[in-house]
Amino acid sequence: MSMDAELPPIVPIRDETLSLRLQQRIDLKTKPRGSLGRLESLAHQIGLIRGTVSPRLSPPTVFVFAADHGVAAEGVSAYLQEVTWQMVENFLAGGAAITVLARQQDVALRIVDAGVKHDFGSRAGLIDRKIRAGSGNLAIEPAMTAQECRQALRAGMDLMADVDSDVIGFGEMGIANTTPAAALMHALTGISVADCVGAGTGVDAQGMARKIRVIQHAMQRHAGAQTPLDVLAALGGLEIAMMTGAMLGAASRRRVLLIDGFIATSALLVAARLAPAILDYCVFCHQSDERGHARMLQALGARPLLDMGLRLGEGTGCVLAWPLVQAAAAFLCDMASFEEAGVSDRGDER
Amino acid sequence: MSMDAELPPIVPIRDETLSLRLQQRIDLKTKPRGSLGRLESLAHQIGLIRGTVSPRLSPPTVFVFAADHGVAAEGVSAYLQEVTWQMVENFLAGGAAITVLARQQDVALRIVDAGVKHDFGSRAGLIDRKIRAGSGNLAIEPAMTAQECRQALRAGMDLMADVDSDVIGFGEMGIANTTPAAALMHALTGISVADCVGAGTGVDAQGMARKIRVIQHAMQRHAGAQTPLDVLAALGGLEIAMMTGAMLGAASRRRVLLIDGFIATSALLVAARLAPAILDYCVFCHQSDERGHARMLQALGARPLLDMGLRLGEGTGCVLAWPLVQAAAAFLCDMASFEEAGVSDRGDER
Repeated sequence: MSMDAELPPIVPIRDETLSLRLQQRIDLKTKPRGSLGRLESLAHQIGLIRGTVSPRLSPPTVFVFAADHGVAAEGVSAYLQEVTWQMVENFLAGGAAITVLARQQDVALRIVDAGVKHDFGSRAGLIDRKIRAGSGNLAIEPAMTAQECRQALRAGMDLMADVDSDVIGFGEMGIANTTPAAALMHALTGISVADCVGAGTGVDAQGMARKIRVIQHAMQRHAGAQTPLDVLAALGGLEIAMMTGAMLGAASRRRVLLIDGFIATSALLVAARLAPAILDYCVFCHQSDERGHARMLQALGARPLLDMGLRLGEGTGCVLAWPLVQAAAAFLCDMASFEEAGVSDRGDER
Repeated sequence: MSMDAELPPIVPIRDETLSLRLQQRIDLKTKPRGSLGRLESLAHQIGLIRGTVSPRLSPPTVFVFAADHGVAAEGVSAYLQEVTWQMVENFLAGGAAITVLARQQDVALRIVDAGVKHDFGSRAGLIDRKIRAGSGNLAIEPAMTAQECRQALRAGMDLMADVDSDVIGFGEMGIANTTPAAALMHALTGISVADCVGAGTGVDAQGMARKIRVIQHAMQRHAGAQTPLDVLAALGGLEIAMMTGAMLGAASRRRVLLIDGFIATSALLVAARLAPAILDYCVFCHQSDERGHARMLQALGARPLLDMGLRLGEGTGCVLAWPLVQAAAAFLCDMASFEEAGVSDRGDER
């Protein structure tokens, strides 16, 4: 059986009646038409996803998928590979950015080992879905076999089965993972390698030149990869593939998907090639400072909510954008209409 | 005694030692340097304002100042003047955007009658600081007398004496108040009237032309107004003047000031002309969709956090930006350092 046959069905959102009812409800709230700006289109989208004009959203769950990357051996990161597992420990201990921000915003966090090159033993709080201890070095070999890639996708999908939250965020940790993300972007969009590559955690011009060369070699090495799944297996990463699967699973369950930065968006890029309707379910949380992200968002026709110069990953952008999503749902559910509040509407609308 | 002598002292923030300590603390957190983007500069500013490297912030209080404007008689708004008091009732009843958003974000709300043309009687929850029932029509007379302007400023300052919050937001409600705000902007910055005027609650091109003519007439009528306080009395509004006073009071008490949209920023413009050091205490929450706001922010050297196409006022931008301020303080207080977490820093920093 091919993987495509196993993909969950994602229903494109085409409910004209609900769409009109939502717009009318938004327009009758006690405020000038359109004056809540992006919150209004966000409220409209959330209503459509959840299939109601009163979308009360439960607090989100953010999944952080961690894995190592063979391509780290090419010197494409400013950090040592061991930082991946050390940061997983930092997540579990509560000292990382994502844990601090999630705690503050009442966001549940799930840390998933998708393929970290480290033996954590049995660690409370860590969800063990390790496919293998780090991907292959995409410069010289496939990052994953086709079967490993399928396993990662399936594990991501299955994780979505037990989540109660209406809203799901996707974050990641994996030293060197801007390189596979940039490679996926290039392979799936045709945008030049130079425009896909950025400084990641902070490499200098030489490091960026190295990333470009590595990806160019990889493109020759894996020229045979044609389908999105072939490309994902050859150039991706274990956490990226598992995130792609999780995104597909979440959209098939009509959840609101919070998309974080460069790596998470590269996982979505793969998902959108497999099931374009997934984009109806996505909220693009922010535009990252990582160089290729703006064009990657463009390629998806996406408009990000925040532009804060973030380039950390971990799902931090999801948690920072969540209060805006919450605000959009809240005004739609709880604001009074002109009639309910006894407020005079503008002359030409009375 | 002149008003200037009564202004509270606002201390410019010049603590180089604390500034260095803050930057070092931010840089040693377990994340690549600078990867939290605007959150990092925000954390630095908050630490300086509060005078500590661990600025734990109590939930904000947002004040919404309401007043009517004589200039509404010139047909400069899409809404009837009665909407001001009707919206005050909507605030008190909990059905307005600011009440819904504030409730959700655990933000305390104080509704202040600075000069609404309506007798509310004794209304629970409404803070009565009515200077008079609506300002004069600035097209043909001063908006306020010098004494009324002083009273409004003083009332705003005094309101800050009883507030416990470390963070204070400033919002407003007043049909027609984009016209005085644009007039203040023009008079205080010299930017052309046409560039200061926008659609407000949604007037058409004719309405905008009318606003421009009204302000041009007002500039001739009040050509004698020279000092910021003269200008505020001649062209401002009761809620704007009270907000100016409240901002000055809050900064003198070293609070973090959340600045909302076009009207709130016009009040700050006056405050900054009186006490330039106030800008050290301001967080600019968003860039409004109201046409003049981008240039008004520029004139203040301000960089807004959000750009969501909002144009509602009421302090809504303050509540939407608050989680970002909270996140900045939280990462500074609660994230682990590389050393604390046992995470390897990048090679060139080890």
